[in-house]
Amino acid sequence: MADKIQVCIIGSGNWGSAIAKIVGANATKFPEFDDRVNMYVYEEMIDGKKLTEIINTTHENIKYLPGHQLPPNVVAVPDIVQAAATADILVFVVPHQFVKNFCASLLGKIKPTAQAISLIKGFDKAEGGGIDLISHIITRHLKIPCSVLMGANLANEVAEGKFCETTIGCRDIKYGKVLKDIFQADHFRVSVVDDVDATEVCGALKNIVACGAGFMDGLNSGDNAKAAVIRIGLMEMIRFVDIFYPGSKLGTFFESCGVADLITTCYGGRNRKVSEAFVKTGKSIAELEKEMLGGQKLQGPFTAEEVNYMLKNKNMEDKFPLFTSIHKICIGELKATQFVESIRNQPDHVLSLKA
Amino acid sequence: MADKIQVCIIGSGNWGSAIAKIVGANATKFPEFDDRVNMYVYEEMIDGKKLTEIINTTHENIKYLPGHQLPPNVVAVPDIVQAAATADILVFVVPHQFVKNFCASLLGKIKPTAQAISLIKGFDKAEGGGIDLISHIITRHLKIPCSVLMGANLANEVAEGKFCETTIGCRDIKYGKVLKDIFQADHFRVSVVDDVDATEVCGALKNIVACGAGFMDGLNSGDNAKAAVIRIGLMEMIRFVDIFYPGSKLGTFFESCGVADLITTCYGGRNRKVSEAFVKTGKSIAELEKEMLGGQKLQGPFTAEEVNYMLKNKNMEDKFPLFTSIHKICIGELKATQFVESIRNQPDHVLSLKA
Repeated sequence: MADKIQVCIIGSGNWGSAIAKIVGANATKFPEFDDRVNMYVYEEMIDGKKLTEIINTTHENIKYLPGHQLPPNVVAVPDIVQAAATADILVFVVPHQFVKNFCASLLGKIKPTAQAISLIKGFDKAEGGGIDLISHIITRHLKIPCSVLMGANLANEVAEGKFCETTIGCRDIKYGKVLKDIFQADHFRVSVVDDVDATEVCGALKNIVACGAGFMDGLNSGDNAKAAVIRIGLMEMIRFVDIFYPGSKLGTFFESCGVADLITTCYGGRNRKVSEAFVKTGKSIAELEKEMLGGQKLQGPFTAEEVNYMLKNKNMEDKFPLFTSIHKICIGELKATQFVESIRNQPDHVLSLKA
Repeated sequence: MADKIQVCIIGSGNWGSAIAKIVGANATKFPEFDDRVNMYVYEEMIDGKKLTEIINTTHENIKYLPGHQLPPNVVAVPDIVQAAATADILVFVVPHQFVKNFCASLLGKIKPTAQAISLIKGFDKAEGGGIDLISHIITRHLKIPCSVLMGANLANEVAEGKFCETTIGCRDIKYGKVLKDIFQADHFRVSVVDDVDATEVCGALKNIVACGAGFMDGLNSGDNAKAAVIRIGLMEMIRFVDIFYPGSKLGTFFESCGVADLITTCYGGRNRKVSEAFVKTGKSIAELEKEMLGGQKLQGPFTAEEVNYMLKNKNMEDKFPLFTSIHKICIGELKATQFVESIRNQPDHVLSLKA
């Protein structure tokens, strides 16, 4: 029993609960894992009852994933330290703004051999400006390795057992096989790559491209133009990763975390939708965030701003006309109608990344 | 005058007329080209008038591209030999089934130094079975080099001046610059690669993938699953090109002819649409071709069949689970509901193509 791998899921929102269905099932299926999977749940009162008690008696997260049964071996725990203390694998799936606080609570109170994996999309603003990856934050604060799981994975579709693919980025490919065992299901196909940073940063950069796709929709520019934006966006994503995350591999962009996630985000997704409305209504992004997202911050414009900070620092704005013009349009420095003009002339896209 | 490059457009349908707007304008803009651009027009009577005469007096192809003015230097010619006799660049943009006949008419009657470029999507069935590329057919029959122009280029959007990108595949990069001059416009951005076969075959293979995307739509499988199909389809396209068109380059798939054309075809396009209806109605492809396409043949299922012939010959069906299962579903050997099962387990996708 002591030798078995213990998994703890930190987070119990929509995505956390969806993944708990799979992780819980795999923990009982494979002998190398301890059956019990702790799930840290931020305690809330629902109709006078504690959410953890509801989950532990009905096995349903009625607030964040109603209508789905969690495996009974997934145990809701309201204390994060208690949930994670003996875990070998810490699955982070909380809103990104809470990561640092959780790490502070956990520091020194987890197994020194534990490893983390982040399912969190988005990133933090680095000191001064620029992108600070969530996996880097976790490793820096907890002093443990951190893998990532990213892809075209809408939580509700995963929970419903609809087919999809996902990408695990893990530097140690042998350990990646353990992670694959705990996350893969018949309907949830895992591919493991050793290219952690590129796997994670794709999920942030795609939101910038989705804004460009939304602008094109708003301008009624047609299917050809939208496809061009997605293609140019993919090229800029690759070049960005090549410059800022050297050693990354081209093959990662062919995984679910790359081209697949990019495509769905540019056709569905809130960044595309709000950006379309931005062009059609003439309102500011901030106004639309209030109206359309209940005040939540849109990832695309924020990412474009931090990416622009990094590009400016390297004097490279002109090598990224798409990222740069999207940022300028979001902050009102450029009109959306000037978007096509800005991306008309592409710098030579040399695929310098290794396959 | 004798030194100037003469361009002849062979074809005057929707796409041929759209491209004639650009080619005509560039022929007068750049001094290296002869102003006059002959356009071979299959003669038809429209309200008692010859179509060539209508075009040459009103400068509008009222049948195939109504509402658009062609440049006056584009001259409609009803005799293909007369149209092409002194041309240096022969732009083929006719339905693919007519190519061999046109080549037979032209053989020995064109300049021996002439070069061709094919804008024709689709391919012919090779003797026995398999894909015979249009550019190969032209080169074989006319004994002249043949480049290709392919991409996410819906003809009406191009004619309307909406922004898009396109890819020219030309073995001689120096000559590719001449082709770029005659085809590029402010709204029609040309990228030249030397990888002719891959540029052309992408345009055929994407139609298979679009059938898979349509099946997923018909099955209500969700956005994740559709993105997975597009991604897996792209991987099989790359592997197919690597095996059957060795020497091709990975970078070509990042051009408009690759990922951009694939995406638009999987979201718009008739292959996706008919395949969705195939799943939802239970009717056969042949029935739906009659009902939805007025009897026209759908490219995807036909391509899937010829690709399957090539894969079977090499005993490689199992390395291409997506292409193979789409073919089997189209011919009724497999149920559409078994599609996910067939693509669940992917062979290792090794990116063996050079960037």
